[in-house]
Amino acid sequence: MNIITGGVTAPKGFKAAGIHCGVKDNFTTPVPDKKDLAMVLSDVPCAAAGTYTRNVVKADPVILTKEYLADHKAQGIILDSGNANACAPKGMENAKRMAAAAAAATGLAPQDFAVCSTGIIGVELNITAIEAGVPALVAALADTEQASNDAAHAILTTEIGGKTVTVGAIAKGSGMIHPNMGTMLCAVTTDCAIDGAVLQDMLRHIVTKTFNRITVDGDTSTNDTCVVLANGLAGNAPITGPGADYDALVEALRYVCEYEAKMIASDGEGAGRLVTCTVQGAASEEQAELMAKAVVRSPLVKCAIFGTDANWGRVLCAVGYSGAEFDPKDVEVKFLSQAGELKVCAGGQGVPFDEDLAKKVLSEPEVVILVTLTAGDATCSCWGCDLTYDYVKINGDYRS
Amino acid sequence: MNIITGGVTAPKGFKAAGIHCGVKDNFTTPVPDKKDLAMVLSDVPCAAAGTYTRNVVKADPVILTKEYLADHKAQGIILDSGNANACAPKGMENAKRMAAAAAAATGLAPQDFAVCSTGIIGVELNITAIEAGVPALVAALADTEQASNDAAHAILTTEIGGKTVTVGAIAKGSGMIHPNMGTMLCAVTTDCAIDGAVLQDMLRHIVTKTFNRITVDGDTSTNDTCVVLANGLAGNAPITGPGADYDALVEALRYVCEYEAKMIASDGEGAGRLVTCTVQGAASEEQAELMAKAVVRSPLVKCAIFGTDANWGRVLCAVGYSGAEFDPKDVEVKFLSQAGELKVCAGGQGVPFDEDLAKKVLSEPEVVILVTLTAGDATCSCWGCDLTYDYVKINGDYRS
Repeated sequence: MNIITGGVTAPKGFKAAGIHCGVKDNFTTPVPDKKDLAMVLSDVPCAAAGTYTRNVVKADPVILTKEYLADHKAQGIILDSGNANACAPKGMENAKRMAAAAAAATGLAPQDFAVCSTGIIGVELNITAIEAGVPALVAALADTEQASNDAAHAILTTEIGGKTVTVGAIAKGSGMIHPNMGTMLCAVTTDCAIDGAVLQDMLRHIVTKTFNRITVDGDTSTNDTCVVLANGLAGNAPITGPGADYDALVEALRYVCEYEAKMIASDGEGAGRLVTCTVQGAASEEQAELMAKAVVRSPLVKCAIFGTDANWGRVLCAVGYSGAEFDPKDVEVKFLSQAGELKVCAGGQGVPFDEDLAKKVLSEPEVVILVTLTAGDATCSCWGCDLTYDYVKINGDYRS
Repeated sequence: MNIITGGVTAPKGFKAAGIHCGVKDNFTTPVPDKKDLAMVLSDVPCAAAGTYTRNVVKADPVILTKEYLADHKAQGIILDSGNANACAPKGMENAKRMAAAAAAATGLAPQDFAVCSTGIIGVELNITAIEAGVPALVAALADTEQASNDAAHAILTTEIGGKTVTVGAIAKGSGMIHPNMGTMLCAVTTDCAIDGAVLQDMLRHIVTKTFNRITVDGDTSTNDTCVVLANGLAGNAPITGPGADYDALVEALRYVCEYEAKMIASDGEGAGRLVTCTVQGAASEEQAELMAKAVVRSPLVKCAIFGTDANWGRVLCAVGYSGAEFDPKDVEVKFLSQAGELKVCAGGQGVPFDEDLAKKVLSEPEVVILVTLTAGDATCSCWGCDLTYDYVKINGDYRS
């Protein structure tokens, strides 16, 4: 796991660290150079909020974190990668031991920690390695910035109640050795002062507009977790409800969450490029989201992007089975990227286009599929990635 | 397109043929050895039923066929491959011309034909090639059996009202040059005598239990069509409603449809093997279907099968996000094939298993994932295929 300290340690009073403790050695050859244990810690208690996977099969750390954060209070996050501690023997016991180890090494209570795990399912967690590693992890906590990796992570400052508030985030990305269920783990820190219950509502709303709009392979992990810690050290008057301060934090939080969501999508297993589908002119945001999500999820669309093939028929096909209602004769499709813009379909039918330009547009690292209707004025963007040989290779040979 | 005459011509009074006319030459180099135009024709008028794609974007031949078969009467089916005639210029005009050409060459009316197309979307159909080819197609009609290909297609005989009734079927399979949206085209023939409206209800019910339970990539084509022609030449007393005769035909029709459905699944683009997920002990058939379909649709499960990796965690994950409600602690998972049986999960947790046996079981061409609950006595099977390099290769370079 790569902890980019520049992300979560940018707000005042947060430290972070990542080390190798041996969790990943469970099921493969030893990989001492790969980090598999991480922590984010605030100097002071925080308002805390979390959103969790909707999968019926929830990993024990998810269940535990939900319980620990029920009072909207926490001070740190401990994370492992290599083992999801899901459907695993002694799952809850080991999740609790992870929190207890973090507590013992920091002088806090286990309930002050969110516990996040990602990796293989069904294998007992090497809790001994974690317990042995935690003191070194805590000793490594720092608020310094690893400038070289900084750009990959979102930091944003905004003015709230006359104070500068910073929001930072880290998310699981390509730093994992073993790809794993496309699990989404995201830790967001801010020095904004805010009531915990208000933060929880805010996060829930923002996650539906950001993380819930990405798809790598359509599989929803047992471990998805997004935790926000707000320690209040910016010194603003605490946000307790709607108003200008509330709106300012929503905007900042949404920005970093959208940034992380897009990073996770573009960083999908074996992915070569970020694919955005924006649907505009829809009758409602819900309808636009149904359509956009179907497009970025479609394996056929994803393969076409991989092959730089402007196969707009597959885009039409995907919006057609998305569950949204629309007039097929009212669909315009464009492909856009830094290399240019290409209209490929108007009035639900193909229009002639320059195949050379199509190749150029679709060869860029970020490609937008723009679907335009005239049914209303609602817009939604969803994000995904292409489907490549490497996705099959990585996922065809993961566990064994 | 490969017309296997042993399939649809097995019932009395049906002929079939397949030729190359040039539809596929539209968008690739000429492929004179590949069939792209086919016909199934009854000697006498038939009761007819059809089920069609639920995609909002419907190809014009689908719309036309639905209209022509609204009276539950037809006598033949004309099919092309290479061009789906969907979202294409002059789509409806060309679909009508296809039916008219079939009618002119057979002395029937256009409304006596179902029109089915599969292939690229958005490109104008080469109707001139089809019109030029139809006379040769009709001249080639025969009721002989191509024994060598016979096994790949379903034929079943049953006793109805003291008469031997035969049901035959053909479906689009791997004989297509260009994979295309996973389109499902199936033509079923029978010499059973049955009322057209009764046949329509029967087909609709059977399709939900067969074709609607397969998935290759989760994409629903613009062109999916299943047409049944029943010409009555078996001489049984016509089936006009529920009863023993009705039940006997349901059983026969379901058998051939399930057979074709599994063939289509195992024949998915780039697929190496047929994957069946059977969920048993579920609270209801609907719940079982949700779970089974999520498993065979999951890209991660499909990749694991490709990699012969007994990654049961992905199976649990898929049933977990399927939308079904169940107790995660009540899940047992087995992998089965001709090579043996392997229990990998019990009580929602992993159990030790023999990795060598796992490789053997998962290396077979047909693999069953058996999920057992104790929530009730409902069972459902869904069918799919593995996800391979070839799927990506084929679909990454289809249109251009």
